[in-house]
Amino acid sequence: MQQTVKQLVNEGRLEFVNGGWCMSDEATTHYSAVIDQMTMGLRFLNETFGACGRPRVAWHIDPFGHAREHASMFAQMGYDGFFFGRLDYQDRDRRMMAKEQELLWRASESLTPPVADLFTGILPNGYNPPPGFCWDQSCDDPPIRDDPDLEDYNVDDVVRRFLAIANRQSLVYKTNHIIMTMGSDFQYENANLWYKNLDKLIHYVNAQQANGDKVNVLYSTPSCYLQELHRANLTWALKTDDFFPYADDAHDFWTGYFTSRPALKRYERISNSNLQTCNQLEVLGGPDSRKGPFGEGDSQTMKKAMAVAQHHDAVSGTEKQHVANDYARRLANGWQHCQALVSNSLAALSGSSAKRIYCDNLNISVCPLTESSKKFSVNVYNPLARPVTWPVRLPVNGTAYVVSDANGKTVDCQVVPVSAATREVRRNRGSAVNELVFEVQAPPLGFTTYSVSLLKDGPPPASTKHRTPTAIQNKFLRVTFDPDTGLLSSLSNLETKQTIKLTQNFYWYNASDGNNSESIQPSGAYIFRPNSSTPFIISKTAKTESIQTSAVQEVRQWFSPWVSQVVRLYTESRALELEWTVGPVPIDDDLGKEVITRLDTSIETSQYFYTDSNGREVLQRKTDFRPTWNLKQSEPIAGNYYPINSRAFIKDDNDQLTVVTDRSQGGGSIYNGSLEIMLHRRLLYDDVRGVAEPLNETSKIFPEGLVVRGRLLLSLDRPPSAADAHRPLAQEVVLQPLLTFTDGDLHPNTQLEFSGLQAALPPAVHLLTLTQWDKDSVLVRLEHQFQSGESKVNSQPVTVNLQKMFSTLEVLGVSELNLSANQWKDEMTRLQWTPQTEERPLLKTFEDPSVWEVTLRPMEIRTFLLRVSLR
Amino acid sequence: MQQTVKQLVNEGRLEFVNGGWCMSDEATTHYSAVIDQMTMGLRFLNETFGACGRPRVAWHIDPFGHAREHASMFAQMGYDGFFFGRLDYQDRDRRMMAKEQELLWRASESLTPPVADLFTGILPNGYNPPPGFCWDQSCDDPPIRDDPDLEDYNVDDVVRRFLAIANRQSLVYKTNHIIMTMGSDFQYENANLWYKNLDKLIHYVNAQQANGDKVNVLYSTPSCYLQELHRANLTWALKTDDFFPYADDAHDFWTGYFTSRPALKRYERISNSNLQTCNQLEVLGGPDSRKGPFGEGDSQTMKKAMAVAQHHDAVSGTEKQHVANDYARRLANGWQHCQALVSNSLAALSGSSAKRIYCDNLNISVCPLTESSKKFSVNVYNPLARPVTWPVRLPVNGTAYVVSDANGKTVDCQVVPVSAATREVRRNRGSAVNELVFEVQAPPLGFTTYSVSLLKDGPPPASTKHRTPTAIQNKFLRVTFDPDTGLLSSLSNLETKQTIKLTQNFYWYNASDGNNSESIQPSGAYIFRPNSSTPFIISKTAKTESIQTSAVQEVRQWFSPWVSQVVRLYTESRALELEWTVGPVPIDDDLGKEVITRLDTSIETSQYFYTDSNGREVLQRKTDFRPTWNLKQSEPIAGNYYPINSRAFIKDDNDQLTVVTDRSQGGGSIYNGSLEIMLHRRLLYDDVRGVAEPLNETSKIFPEGLVVRGRLLLSLDRPPSAADAHRPLAQEVVLQPLLTFTDGDLHPNTQLEFSGLQAALPPAVHLLTLTQWDKDSVLVRLEHQFQSGESKVNSQPVTVNLQKMFSTLEVLGVSELNLSANQWKDEMTRLQWTPQTEERPLLKTFEDPSVWEVTLRPMEIRTFLLRVSLR
Repeated sequence: MQQTVKQLVNEGRLEFVNGGWCMSDEATTHYSAVIDQMTMGLRFLNETFGACGRPRVAWHIDPFGHAREHASMFAQMGYDGFFFGRLDYQDRDRRMMAKEQELLWRASESLTPPVADLFTGILPNGYNPPPGFCWDQSCDDPPIRDDPDLEDYNVDDVVRRFLAIANRQSLVYKTNHIIMTMGSDFQYENANLWYKNLDKLIHYVNAQQANGDKVNVLYSTPSCYLQELHRANLTWALKTDDFFPYADDAHDFWTGYFTSRPALKRYERISNSNLQTCNQLEVLGGPDSRKGPFGEGDSQTMKKAMAVAQHHDAVSGTEKQHVANDYARRLANGWQHCQALVSNSLAALSGSSAKRIYCDNLNISVCPLTESSKKFSVNVYNPLARPVTWPVRLPVNGTAYVVSDANGKTVDCQVVPVSAATREVRRNRGSAVNELVFEVQAPPLGFTTYSVSLLKDGPPPASTKHRTPTAIQNKFLRVTFDPDTGLLSSLSNLETKQTIKLTQNFYWYNASDGNNSESIQPSGAYIFRPNSSTPFIISKTAKTESIQTSAVQEVRQWFSPWVSQVVRLYTESRALELEWTVGPVPIDDDLGKEVITRLDTSIETSQYFYTDSNGREVLQRKTDFRPTWNLKQSEPIAGNYYPINSRAFIKDDNDQLTVVTDRSQGGGSIYNGSLEIMLHRRLLYDDVRGVAEPLNETSKIFPEGLVVRGRLLLSLDRPPSAADAHRPLAQEVVLQPLLTFTDGDLHPNTQLEFSGLQAALPPAVHLLTLTQWDKDSVLVRLEHQFQSGESKVNSQPVTVNLQKMFSTLEVLGVSELNLSANQWKDEMTRLQWTPQTEERPLLKTFEDPSVWEVTLRPMEIRTFLLRVSLR
Repeated sequence: MQQTVKQLVNEGRLEFVNGGWCMSDEATTHYSAVIDQMTMGLRFLNETFGACGRPRVAWHIDPFGHAREHASMFAQMGYDGFFFGRLDYQDRDRRMMAKEQELLWRASESLTPPVADLFTGILPNGYNPPPGFCWDQSCDDPPIRDDPDLEDYNVDDVVRRFLAIANRQSLVYKTNHIIMTMGSDFQYENANLWYKNLDKLIHYVNAQQANGDKVNVLYSTPSCYLQELHRANLTWALKTDDFFPYADDAHDFWTGYFTSRPALKRYERISNSNLQTCNQLEVLGGPDSRKGPFGEGDSQTMKKAMAVAQHHDAVSGTEKQHVANDYARRLANGWQHCQALVSNSLAALSGSSAKRIYCDNLNISVCPLTESSKKFSVNVYNPLARPVTWPVRLPVNGTAYVVSDANGKTVDCQVVPVSAATREVRRNRGSAVNELVFEVQAPPLGFTTYSVSLLKDGPPPASTKHRTPTAIQNKFLRVTFDPDTGLLSSLSNLETKQTIKLTQNFYWYNASDGNNSESIQPSGAYIFRPNSSTPFIISKTAKTESIQTSAVQEVRQWFSPWVSQVVRLYTESRALELEWTVGPVPIDDDLGKEVITRLDTSIETSQYFYTDSNGREVLQRKTDFRPTWNLKQSEPIAGNYYPINSRAFIKDDNDQLTVVTDRSQGGGSIYNGSLEIMLHRRLLYDDVRGVAEPLNETSKIFPEGLVVRGRLLLSLDRPPSAADAHRPLAQEVVLQPLLTFTDGDLHPNTQLEFSGLQAALPPAVHLLTLTQWDKDSVLVRLEHQFQSGESKVNSQPVTVNLQKMFSTLEVLGVSELNLSANQWKDEMTRLQWTPQTEERPLLKTFEDPSVWEVTLRPMEIRTFLLRVSLR
């Protein structure tokens, strides 16, 4: 069987499309995890089938809207074209009329065409066969009965219906070739049914050629079809925006899943950070990482769990509850495997095999070790290729501690009481009364160690004030509050001397319940449909308390029993942290709720705002507007929501307020100066798009409804330099330091500090990937993390030297690969397509001056396989 | 693929079981149609696969109760054993305890053992796999997941569950071998699922042998299993009764389908008669039958239609309405093909190719030709091997006719008015006001011709009297009526001088509606469950009118707008005809109804009554009793119903009242002297056994509910000679004369009379089959139609001469076959089994004195292939 399959692949009769580990979601995924999962799937195909197994066509027949960054990645992965099934119904109507269902997508404003150009085709029937032509165990269409003796002989009818469909389809596509997908969800479980009928269909339709019919049907593959389109030598409409939001009807905007299952979305994001750390430490620690004092560890389990979590019914939040639980379980299991590896690697690098404790619940101030220990050390591993300053908050029961860094130098630390909201949320999983707060500084791609000693036991320090302060500030930011309402009132950047009015509050949209009618669309896991465009305010005022210490200043706001927030300013931070806690969302009124926070500012946005695409390039959005067609807006809120993967901003000539998120969320800018972000959803009806379950999350610990906590980081800047702040800030959130703890004293020989780099990489360069490839080689991706033109300083080409990059790895050889690492860069020749509006671009190749010197241009990612040995 | 299948068959790895054209129903089929359908299926296997394709095992895993005559037929067809799935739950419980689920069935009281002995096994799980072990596209059981990395690895659990089931099963069967069926309804549509899991199951269960487990699992076949049982050389419980009625729980007696769809059941029965005529005329007419003046004709289409109509969800009446319609359509289509053949054959035999008209609606007095023609002839073909006297009733509009026979002799004929009931039932399909009645006499296996001429047109003769006569009588019978009620009051046989009291009326049981509860069983297509044991009487009195002529005497009884009857006595008949018309059964009271007629007599039945098995041997029945276990009766009516295929009788020392039916029906004897027969059913609920539709028959012509008409023939005799009357009477109903009509004068050269036999066969011998086998040979089955001991005269061996049998066929050679004609009789060696209660019988072989002289013993059927040529 394996032999047969390989032969079919080698003959081009069986073709793999897409070929990732999964078909990823496009709205809620981060580019780094998507690249990883594609790399894993394509590597499997490469290793199993060789060159003929390499997919030529990207194939996203189901995802609910299409991200420009995905198209850009597919182009850089060497795909010749891309086919998908779902797009806005108005968009499709226009494209059918204009024969623009096949187009050329220019998917980057930074990369030089045609690097990110991707030929894109919209399939005629989504992922389905034409109506009436489905033959499988889950299909009901009548089989082709070609025995004339049969009562229900139907060849004539089948042929007539097929020709009618083929002719109609030919009117809305450009060439003489049309594609029909024959299959659907869960199909080919009984392939015989399909092929038996397809054989007959082809036979009887082609037999009509004898009667002058011009339709010729054949088995084909997507890449054969693509090749015919290419041979047609036509020009194609050029598209530079994306395909969000997706609506399949006037009141059916698939913008709810941008936020659905916010806890799973955060768990996926933090798992990505942990996996990158795991990958890096596998390289840096060498073989000892995989088998060491802490047993056998591996990164593969978590790689697989993360890869499958990118699926368009995984991180998207559009799966049933028990499936969501399984995704989380897989991630947790992957992290267990990684913990052994990380412990082994840190043991090898530090020379200490003292037991390392992981505290995964620091966000709710739970860590049994720090809660009870009188002396412990904290290892801070920084997966970024740049030093990082990071605030640490540890649950403790003492009132005074001494914290010293790797050099033995005491650092400022403060003890603050655990908030009431945190005590409520953690239930009985922890008992800390205080939090110990200090800022750590970790070296690039390495770790440092802090030791913590208890000075004084006892009750929480009486530092909480129950009056709203008029302002909190550090050397970078000043935040003011309205004393009457307890709400934020302004934000100032003290360095740039700019101030905006800023009010922030929490609201909920009443989710449409479908009125118990089949024709009225309810909100569900996929779809956001508020019953009214005016959300309910949760409270006009917030009860507050404040804490002001030398390390951190907090204003704790209490809006209702199920909505609270901490406005937090760390001493060394240029970003204002809004730590929100939402839930259990009450449903005793039988109303589904979609909870948002809205920032209302004095910025003159003129209907524009900006969101990132999969955490990379930023797209301009405009209320009630689509760049490529004349929008007839039918949902003033849901129809203006867009996915926010890592950041959104609003700006005018003077001010740019950027919000960096800790997970994917949906958001929009409905009013001038306003930016709203949906934080949590709790719904009572299914939206009839396949999940067949209301999105009504509960858990063992929260049977009355899930509580979700997260952070928004606000940065106020002058527009021309805003990216200099939000680019590194977002990367710090995506790849956050990993803290591990050791009880008691460390062995004196323990190496307390380590960096895997000879020097920090330049600010524009992000070390996207560092992972073991095989015994002797590691995969490295270097990324220019700025768009062209978004920063005077950083949007410039930058050169690094691969050989001189790592401190402990000797680089013996280097080969450049395509983005997905399944093809040598110099063998990557893609089909070239001509846009309607301009000349076919010349393929520019940038020659690196030397094999070791690598130049990155804005938004470029370059992928290298390094042959290495540990020094 | 064909090569592979043949090889697997030849190696014994793939085995056919049963092998009929269908798996026939056992309760509602007639033996002649069952033998035909088995012959057709087994011939196909023989011709496709040769000797290795011959099934060794009969396999009735679904039929709802098992007939002794079926077992007898299977034995005579050469099967080594028989497996089935369904039997009474109390019977199964007892058999499990006693390890008697495998037994030896002695299926005939007449045939010398072991001719009708059949080893019979009851499958452990019906037609299903053991619970939890079903893997197919329509199954939900978890597949065997044997990758230990899988979260839901379940090999240990699966093996544990399987061993538990296997060990439990071994406790209730006799040998060290047990059988498990792996499959079910509609399974192996995706065989890969099954085999993948079975392979794993076998592997992992057998691996436990290393741990001392004694279970060894292997792929096997029913005949391999049977062979192991045989090798065990044990003795087996002997069974001589049958497996009716079948109940799967205390209130779930599958006795409704004995009557379900009475119109389809009658259509199937009359189609069998027509098919036998068609078969015979194909032989007698020679090649001209298949292609002649009336185009191409064939018997094959109707053979197939009849064969599939024997299915246990066909003539059983347990299919959906549209499926029932399809069965009827196939039969009608088959009859169209046969009509061309019959017309051609009669043209060849008579020398006249005048157009022949078929009137299939004579039962409702519809025949356009006779209604309008002033002169026409009637060809009467008699498929019996004996002359027949048969009353003909033709719809006419004249008041006086002359009818003359083939010799030009005038025969007595009478004109009577069409009854009101018939005018109501025929709707606007005919307009005859009168019926012309005369008796015809047809030669054996041949035809005669009567000519009919109109004498006088005009209104119906005023012969109807509106007073109930006290009696009607002919020279054989006298029937009296109660003048107050209009009901029958007595029946006398004037020859034997015996008289019984006889009252007859119509009733309906209120069908259980399940009370809208899942736990309460409603009546449905399968199940009969009256709400009360006391049926509602339709009317205590009947309105009557009577007609008395020299040809026929009728008392027409009117019970209600939907129940009427004609009590009819033809001048030359020894049987009293009760022609009942029932329907549309009213349901405006929302009550399902099961309509019966009940004959209450002075016969002292002492709880006993008698029913036939598939139209052949008769079994004794006893109220609230089963011969092989201690019955706990839970349904006093439904639990006492048995299938009546062609006759039932009640008797005491002096009197036997036999009722010959025109189709299969259910019936019982609930009270002393009483016999009830269910005629029609109309139900409002599904009985949840698979048909998923209430048995609520309507049609285009009867949108308000189907009207059904039928006949019961009553014969009163002394018990020792009753069979001499009911055996030929029943055969005359099963194989009734076929009437064809020709308008106007016949050509003077037309041959008006023909017999295919040199002489009528002796009374005990029935020509069961005469059909073309291939170009040069015909298949003949001769049957001794009396049981041993039931007739002094006729229950004796009888000898016929094959060579001197036919008048127009020269018999060149003869070979005897098994009953199903797929094996030479002298090669038929079956496995022999020893009953517990007696010595293993010696296989007696009867040597015929010559190759041409054939001796038949009671209930014997012998099957011959004759090489013939037309003389």
